[in-house]
Amino acid sequence: MKIKAGIIGATGYAGAELVRLLLGHPQAEIAAVSSVSFEGKAISEVYPSYYGLCDMVCQKAEDVVEKSDVVFAALPHGLSQELAAQCREQDKVFIDLGADFRLENEDDYKEWYGGEYLDKELHRQAVYALPELFRENIKGKKVIANPGCYTTGVPLALAPAVKGGLVELQGIIADCKSGVTGAGRGLSQNTHYPDLNEGFHPYKVASHRHTPEIEQTLSHLAGSRVKVTFVPHLLPVNRGILSTCYARLKPGVTAEQLRSAYEDFYRDEYFVRLLPAGKCADIHNIKCSNFCDISLHVDERTGTFIAVSAIDNMVKGAAGQAVQNMNLAFGLPETVGLTMVPAAF
Amino acid sequence: MKIKAGIIGATGYAGAELVRLLLGHPQAEIAAVSSVSFEGKAISEVYPSYYGLCDMVCQKAEDVVEKSDVVFAALPHGLSQELAAQCREQDKVFIDLGADFRLENEDDYKEWYGGEYLDKELHRQAVYALPELFRENIKGKKVIANPGCYTTGVPLALAPAVKGGLVELQGIIADCKSGVTGAGRGLSQNTHYPDLNEGFHPYKVASHRHTPEIEQTLSHLAGSRVKVTFVPHLLPVNRGILSTCYARLKPGVTAEQLRSAYEDFYRDEYFVRLLPAGKCADIHNIKCSNFCDISLHVDERTGTFIAVSAIDNMVKGAAGQAVQNMNLAFGLPETVGLTMVPAAF
Amino acid sequence: MKIKAGIIGATGYAGAELVRLLLGHPQAEIAAVSSVSFEGKAISEVYPSYYGLCDMVCQKAEDVVEKSDVVFAALPHGLSQELAAQCREQDKVFIDLGADFRLENEDDYKEWYGGEYLDKELHRQAVYALPELFRENIKGKKVIANPGCYTTGVPLALAPAVKGGLVELQGIIADCKSGVTGAGRGLSQNTHYPDLNEGFHPYKVASHRHTPEIEQTLSHLAGSRVKVTFVPHLLPVNRGILSTCYARLKPGVTAEQLRSAYEDFYRDEYFVRLLPAGKCADIHNIKCSNFCDISLHVDERTGTFIAVSAIDNMVKGAAGQAVQNMNLAFGLPETVGLTMVPAAF
Amino acid sequence: MKIKAGIIGATGYAGAELVRLLLGHPQAEIAAVSSVSFEGKAISEVYPSYYGLCDMVCQKAEDVVEKSDVVFAALPHGLSQELAAQCREQDKVFIDLGADFRLENEDDYKEWYGGEYLDKELHRQAVYALPELFRENIKGKKVIANPGCYTTGVPLALAPAVKGGLVELQGIIADCKSGVTGAGRGLSQNTHYPDLNEGFHPYKVASHRHTPEIEQTLSHLAGSRVKVTFVPHLLPVNRGILSTCYARLKPGVTAEQLRSAYEDFYRDEYFVRLLPAGKCADIHNIKCSNFCDISLHVDERTGTFIAVSAIDNMVKGAAGQAVQNMNLAFGLPETVGLTMVPAAF
Repeated sequence: MKIKAGIIGATGYAGAELVRLLLGHPQAEIAAVSSVSFEGKAISEVYPSYYGLCDMVCQKAEDVVEKSDVVFAALPHGLSQELAAQCREQDKVFIDLGADFRLENEDDYKEWYGGEYLDKELHRQAVYALPELFRENIKGKKVIANPGCYTTGVPLALAPAVKGGLVELQGIIADCKSGVTGAGRGLSQNTHYPDLNEGFHPYKVASHRHTPEIEQTLSHLAGSRVKVTFVPHLLPVNRGILSTCYARLKPGVTAEQLRSAYEDFYRDEYFVRLLPAGKCADIHNIKCSNFCDISLHVDERTGTFIAVSAIDNMVKGAAGQAVQNMNLAFGLPETVGLTMVPAAF
Repeated sequence: MKIKAGIIGATGYAGAELVRLLLGHPQAEIAAVSSVSFEGKAISEVYPSYYGLCDMVCQKAEDVVEKSDVVFAALPHGLSQELAAQCREQDKVFIDLGADFRLENEDDYKEWYGGEYLDKELHRQAVYALPELFRENIKGKKVIANPGCYTTGVPLALAPAVKGGLVELQGIIADCKSGVTGAGRGLSQNTHYPDLNEGFHPYKVASHRHTPEIEQTLSHLAGSRVKVTFVPHLLPVNRGILSTCYARLKPGVTAEQLRSAYEDFYRDEYFVRLLPAGKCADIHNIKCSNFCDISLHVDERTGTFIAVSAIDNMVKGAAGQAVQNMNLAFGLPETVGLTMVPAAF
Repeated sequence: MKIKAGIIGATGYAGAELVRLLLGHPQAEIAAVSSVSFEGKAISEVYPSYYGLCDMVCQKAEDVVEKSDVVFAALPHGLSQELAAQCREQDKVFIDLGADFRLENEDDYKEWYGGEYLDKELHRQAVYALPELFRENIKGKKVIANPGCYTTGVPLALAPAVKGGLVELQGIIADCKSGVTGAGRGLSQNTHYPDLNEGFHPYKVASHRHTPEIEQTLSHLAGSRVKVTFVPHLLPVNRGILSTCYARLKPGVTAEQLRSAYEDFYRDEYFVRLLPAGKCADIHNIKCSNFCDISLHVDERTGTFIAVSAIDNMVKGAAGQAVQNMNLAFGLPETVGLTMVPAAF
Repeated sequence: MKIKAGIIGATGYAGAELVRLLLGHPQAEIAAVSSVSFEGKAISEVYPSYYGLCDMVCQKAEDVVEKSDVVFAALPHGLSQELAAQCREQDKVFIDLGADFRLENEDDYKEWYGGEYLDKELHRQAVYALPELFRENIKGKKVIANPGCYTTGVPLALAPAVKGGLVELQGIIADCKSGVTGAGRGLSQNTHYPDLNEGFHPYKVASHRHTPEIEQTLSHLAGSRVKVTFVPHLLPVNRGILSTCYARLKPGVTAEQLRSAYEDFYRDEYFVRLLPAGKCADIHNIKCSNFCDISLHVDERTGTFIAVSAIDNMVKGAAGQAVQNMNLAFGLPETVGLTMVPAAF
């Protein structure tokens, strides 16, 4: 029998991508969907790509919870905590694509998001679910905090180096470039076609909310407090995040040692593709897939390690990773429903 | 046991798209691939999207034929005839994505392509395989001429109107707009990024080689000779063809009659999505899928019928239709391996 | 002394483009600008491209009128009539980039725009100002209706053929493709970057408001009532309109006759570039300039004439033509301030 | 009398952009152009944007030299030295857009370009001409090395901080993103439309030839040897370079001190626009203009200074700066012919 999946916030971009992935999942089916803005409307009315394939009508959130074994929430931050509580009461698995359960330290949440943790016990049950880094913690959990997009790409690029003690922990820089879907379906002048097309600019320089989440993950890997200078930019493409990460090499560390550490770390990871030496990660190559491509570079002249990762912000950076987490939570192989081949062009 | 599929010309765009589709096909597997330009090189060296997923090395064409039950040829015109003969000798199914077997009339081939039919018996065995229009002819055939891209989009847009006698056969116009992959992987100034980006222009105005193929199909449907004014344009996007087709309404024909004819004609076609009244076909909605979306419009003021179709030139316009034809040839349901959901953005 | 120019609606796209052109005009200067949405804000706050070059603050419309010799209005339809009256009272030249004064027949305005003519005398004074076609009418006029974008591109493509009686007047088709700036600065789902990027679709098929304006112009040229099937499409580029226009050749008319008619008609027109035989008009080549490139094609097989024009919708299709009209109204050479060379890429 | 300007290599992108700028220059005129690949062809045949505006035919290089007061060379490296010698003999001003005269240290040239200095005296006469930084050196010089694109954007972003001793000289990182025209007009798979569109990747990581040139400039400003980690990326847009530059703040240095240093440094520079606090530089805002927009950011949490510059790689990064240098060399105001307003969209 298939897993019954419900999607709360199904008409946002992450929700819509969940629809696409779950329609193709051989062991899950969409039980119900909800959307505050489009209640009573069909998903395919909002996304004509789905016409004839998912004409399901948006219901109320509580109806979705009731009909589902697993509930995906793709909501603005602050709206997931109550929903998580409902799911716990009814013993449903809850996978949150928002930020409410990602930060362990409530003070960080207060500082960066301006909210507070309503039910601290619930937060204790929650697990931060980046499978490649924290797989063992995730199994058996029912409140699952799905990482954000930058916060998936940057830690995957740096994890083996940081965990292996191969780079200095001071002075790490993450210069990231994201496709526009990262900004969501909501209209803004910033994402109006003529204003963005043929443009390119940084935004929220050193002040983006993903900063503490990236630092939390890297600190866990390092075993000590890591700070990061994080500068996101907006790319005139639909999908994809390229993260160019810089760290100073520890004295004596060689390019070969780094490569070998990455090979060991990611050897059994289906979704991480460590590129051969001489290649560069490119968002072109992972579109609509759950892969994270990583290329490694060393600037011998300045003693700098440069790790570049490419993910699809909507898949590995959101809906795909959420499905990967669903697979983990339900004891399925992690790759089920996620083996689509990225298009060559 | 899976169908063993071979791809000749696997490093061109249509060949590479076949790789993607066949990797995801549950009842076929890629037996071998060949490429003149990249013999000895891995497919994933040419298309890094496939890294780790298809690292198969390009062999010689004859080796591919030998190892395969079905041979797909994605070659420039003129190169398929000999290959088809080899396949017939070894009793392999041959599916030609090139133009060599598409035109029934050798004079048309001579006029538009400048070549001739080397083995006329072979041409007699060949079938023109646009399944939605000629399904019955295709079954059991072993030399299959897969239609071109424009020549799929335009006839699907017009078929019910032409076959149903609802429009005048004189004065039909097909104003088509294609994504750049239609021009192939070969370099040209025309498809150099800065020359094409933010540009848009027609090309081969009223002189494109797909003209006689479109006319052949429409003439079959009409039961009499149809001529078409065909003007292709180059769109600054990767994939997709939008065909805006114009025909004068026969006296007294209404929009309702037209819609009803289209509904009847395409009722059981999985891959044709007739859009509701008021919607417009958009290449955005069929990317990387085998769907053909069609919208219908009537200009009452001028008595003009306007049918608009959208296909992915690389899927329904090439590799996807070829896989659909393979399914037909091997007695599988036509949709096997082709049910991917087009992304919403 | 320089002409004092005022811009009402300066923060919309057409208004902003007027700012750019007037800043570079050697014989005019911007006296004042207004904007309902951004009153009290600097133009360069809205358009950072102008930072340091035009930091003028948006005032009230009446202040702009008072300070100006010529008033450009770039407003949604329906808002220009009152303003025109004010300008007439104060004897200012009024150039309307909106639709209020374009249609001679009030019934057409009622049907397509749903409004009415408040001051019929004012409308009698107004002139429809497409200089290449109606130059003589414009001189000395003070209420100037600047044509729309499609309504510039289509008539310029067809004028010599229609006026010269070389094509049939029945069955003319204009298949037009416009860049996104044509949809304006206002936000809509349609022009949200991820929804439009890599997409392409028709809109307002056979029902766009520019239809009666195109027909009015062609009817004047033909000397009899002309109807047109007009289908606009939205291109994923910022600027440019390509109009592919189809008309049946009158019996016996040759490609040479057509070319010769076009050469005669446009011989002295600086802004119309008739391309050599064999070339195709491309929006790539006229970006940010006031040029209209035209290419001519004949489909001998079907007896169809195909004229293709390319303009920048914001320049020749809006602000540039408005400046050209200002030059005409003030007795300057038409090309002053409009001789910028379109970039090669 | 106008300055007679010749362009050698006029059909490459930098050469073509020179054509555009010189056509609009009120005190210069194009005397002759040359191109090895297109000798005997008109510029407008290669770049149809210039049709009717510059139909000049490409001649031999020596003829261009003879007819000109100033010779611009836009050639691959290694080809300018002999030409410079010819110009010196005939007492023409020589402005080299290539790399042959940029590096003071011949060893750097050997290491990064693999060539050598044929005429050392000539190299001694040459001046590295980034006017905002080295204006005084340029006056009166006749062999002018025009800087490269990255090598303009990065130093302008960092100069006041480096010269003012406000940042550490170790650990400077320049993460740069360039539009595709930077790769030139020559065809490559990399810049084939479908391979690049919707993609984004770094290239020549920590090994790009502009590295020693950037370091040379920063070292002059600092008064001591500066090394830089330089990582360029390829953006899917035609024009523009955004350089995100990172440097550690010296202890105690504040955001206000930095801003004040930049204001002082660039107060009188027309082409540098220091953006107000809170704004971010964007390549969207400087297209086709000679401006360099700079925004300043401080990450207090990590003690990092982030300076972001945006230039048009073809204008301030090539042809525009070359015209600025011509103006300097001929005693004209630097801004003549370069005051075009960047389009708002």
